[in-house]
Amino acid sequence: MGGMSLPDWVFDAAFYQIFPDRFYRSGRAAAWPEASGPFEPWDAPPTVRGFKGGDLWGVADKLDHLLELGVNALYLNPVFASSANHRYHTSDYLRVDPILGGDTALRHLLDEAHARGMRVILDGVFNHSGRGFFPFQHLLENGPASPYRDWYYVRGFPLHAYGAKPNYDAWWDNPELPKLKVATPAVRRYLLHVAEYWIRFGADGWRLDVPEEIDDPAFWAEFRARVKAANPEAYLVGEIWHKAPDWVAPAGPFDGLMNYPLGRAVLGFVGGEGFDRELAARSGLGQVPLLDAAGWVEQVEAVLAAYPEGGFGHLNLLGSHDTPRIYTMMREDAARTALALELLAVLPGAPSIYYGDEIGLPGAHDPDNRRAFPWQHPERWNRAILERVRRVLELRRKQEALRRGGFARVWSEGGRAAFLRGGERGLLLTVNAGSAGWALDLPCSRHGERRQGLLADGRLACRGGRLRGAELPPLTLEAWAWVD
Amino acid sequence: MGGMSLPDWVFDAAFYQIFPDRFYRSGRAAAWPEASGPFEPWDAPPTVRGFKGGDLWGVADKLDHLLELGVNALYLNPVFASSANHRYHTSDYLRVDPILGGDTALRHLLDEAHARGMRVILDGVFNHSGRGFFPFQHLLENGPASPYRDWYYVRGFPLHAYGAKPNYDAWWDNPELPKLKVATPAVRRYLLHVAEYWIRFGADGWRLDVPEEIDDPAFWAEFRARVKAANPEAYLVGEIWHKAPDWVAPAGPFDGLMNYPLGRAVLGFVGGEGFDRELAARSGLGQVPLLDAAGWVEQVEAVLAAYPEGGFGHLNLLGSHDTPRIYTMMREDAARTALALELLAVLPGAPSIYYGDEIGLPGAHDPDNRRAFPWQHPERWNRAILERVRRVLELRRKQEALRRGGFARVWSEGGRAAFLRGGERGLLLTVNAGSAGWALDLPCSRHGERRQGLLADGRLACRGGRLRGAELPPLTLEAWAWVD
Repeated sequence: MGGMSLPDWVFDAAFYQIFPDRFYRSGRAAAWPEASGPFEPWDAPPTVRGFKGGDLWGVADKLDHLLELGVNALYLNPVFASSANHRYHTSDYLRVDPILGGDTALRHLLDEAHARGMRVILDGVFNHSGRGFFPFQHLLENGPASPYRDWYYVRGFPLHAYGAKPNYDAWWDNPELPKLKVATPAVRRYLLHVAEYWIRFGADGWRLDVPEEIDDPAFWAEFRARVKAANPEAYLVGEIWHKAPDWVAPAGPFDGLMNYPLGRAVLGFVGGEGFDRELAARSGLGQVPLLDAAGWVEQVEAVLAAYPEGGFGHLNLLGSHDTPRIYTMMREDAARTALALELLAVLPGAPSIYYGDEIGLPGAHDPDNRRAFPWQHPERWNRAILERVRRVLELRRKQEALRRGGFARVWSEGGRAAFLRGGERGLLLTVNAGSAGWALDLPCSRHGERRQGLLADGRLACRGGRLRGAELPPLTLEAWAWVD
Repeated sequence: MGGMSLPDWVFDAAFYQIFPDRFYRSGRAAAWPEASGPFEPWDAPPTVRGFKGGDLWGVADKLDHLLELGVNALYLNPVFASSANHRYHTSDYLRVDPILGGDTALRHLLDEAHARGMRVILDGVFNHSGRGFFPFQHLLENGPASPYRDWYYVRGFPLHAYGAKPNYDAWWDNPELPKLKVATPAVRRYLLHVAEYWIRFGADGWRLDVPEEIDDPAFWAEFRARVKAANPEAYLVGEIWHKAPDWVAPAGPFDGLMNYPLGRAVLGFVGGEGFDRELAARSGLGQVPLLDAAGWVEQVEAVLAAYPEGGFGHLNLLGSHDTPRIYTMMREDAARTALALELLAVLPGAPSIYYGDEIGLPGAHDPDNRRAFPWQHPERWNRAILERVRRVLELRRKQEALRRGGFARVWSEGGRAAFLRGGERGLLLTVNAGSAGWALDLPCSRHGERRQGLLADGRLACRGGRLRGAELPPLTLEAWAWVD
């Protein structure tokens, strides 16, 4: 399976994850005939069932803002017609939700993004549908007489779809999410058609929701083949929360995974003792162990080593719509939040920022972690985090070593670590997750080696086997360029 | 309202009503990714919930056959995505059902029909949707938090949609058919968009399902305006079972109605005492009174007089998917079936043949009246009916008087009637609904007037104030052309 190498653009990608209902409401979607309203007030706390009315025209309106932030790729939570505000309950895989502006708005967004050199990947939810998906409705109405009778794992007719306990297989036994029977040829054909359809429409890839639930390697192999045939540059990333090299090319169907293990390591290291482990534990993040620098390096190396291509295909993230927000897990410690985001951006793989994390948007569990972006309240934005994220993404954009260079440990002690990206003459990264300044003093082998700090204005030089000359403030990192 | 005159093509139209699931299965729809199967055996008795898998590619395949029959317009029962085999439970008004071949198959059918000078009108079901329609699903899942909360007449949350008694308005209190709240601007806008969308797609008009249920003249006025603006040649015909001149232009929104009153009169006259009145009475046809020729003429005149433009805009029919089939109501009397179809074709308005009636397909109540067309069993076709239908449609095509001429009574007695189409020098029609031959003997005023029979080879001449010279066999009609 696989064998095709990672699309080139993924090395250079800096993602921004958008939960479409909550990012920006342009108001233009209201002109779409299938749309409706009214919506909940934008700034009110989000509810489990309510809609804020963010739309894809709105995402397009903010592309220049995102470019300034340094983002060049978007991962959109599901956009297809759905009865849920998160749209994981798909009603129609072949139509963009009218509240988002329909297919027209996605067309516009893709065109505007591509015109700026930006990429957009979509969220593919193929394990289960919503109850509103027409084959399920068909089966619900017609029972065994329906030509869609083999589309689900039905245990009896009539279907009990709106009571407590479904008589069909469903995701976590949730009747709202009937499990699709991918083994049925018609279902398989449909899903593969969907996969190819949106790539041909212009999407730059798929993030695959709970792919392990579809235990069918032949399906995934064909999925990859169909998508890559439609666009060899398409990016496939699986929502797998643990290390799973069998799912990644060349062994498996995806180019990378949502790299929660790496994110967990960064949180465990940068978050320190103040990190809200209890809050994290009640999400998919699970246990976020307290790590010192050595433990962190070990975790990073373990993640990278698990994948033959070095982990460049992963989507690296600290949080998402499925976790509490970093700022809140960090107990609103802006410096630690910023440092974690910075650190993510200087590791191999494509960093992904969950919308709003860059301004220190708070949020505990769903639905609180899906607040509307406070465009009308810039006074609530944490400018310090925003500026540090902008600067580290700019650094990443300018420094090829951060995008394509290998990772090599240099030194670690307590809350302090140093590592290289791109070899000795590449970048030296120093991270200070401790609460005191760090007078840098690292081993070096080339007498006269000099390095220049790229974020602050420090300089280092190698004398007597020690690299010294600058102090790294607490809760910051620096990238040191080799000076010839 | 209205004021625009009837589209010219409607005068010349001979319709054929197709129930898409039951007409012809091309097999090509199976290639459509959303389609599924298997279907019920084509020749097995139809069931309430089962699907035969007829498709729109299949309709296109049979256009030449229909042209030979003399049909030049199709009225299709609903084609949009639905969980019902009749598709009156709409799931998606903006998508052709995948089992029918999707939008692609409708595109193909319209192109093929138009290339042959044929027209196609669609069935618009705007009073209620199916439960699978996304705004209903949205409301079902999200309750009052849904932006679609004003799309239906909800009496309480959560919705009880799958029990016996719905807590929302529904057609005949059937929970499967929630009534749309047309007063809500978003609903109105959506439905008007749908109306215009498919006209712009290429449909030649709409048959409107239960329009009286939408008691909103402003909606219908805008409906007509939008459709006619999109295509001034579009034809609008309302499913109203009684005389309703307020619904017809220039007073109302439609060009005509489904002319059950005329059909009932034809059945009551031609059907005679053998007509199965009990069967008819258990359908929307209701009471079909036994009529002699005088009573029949009176009914015809009353229907025509009710409409200022003379009833040319009506869709004249003897039966439909909502009634038992003529052949069965006629107790399988082929001659009376054929005569009724002939008589319909020589009256003002567009005749419409329910698929299969032309071959004497039997069928009592739903679902029996929706049997699959027996293409594979030509031995079951009643060739006599078929040939008589073909010949009368040919006659209608050749004789403008039958298409555009006014109706005027001449004479009636017992089961025998004579009337003119297109004035004295137009066509004289003689109908013999009795069981004995009729030696024609009609009053005439122009000595020397001569007429030539167009279906059989008779001649009539006026001498001494009486038009004589031929005998009309029982259960036939003849059209007599003026000979100069």
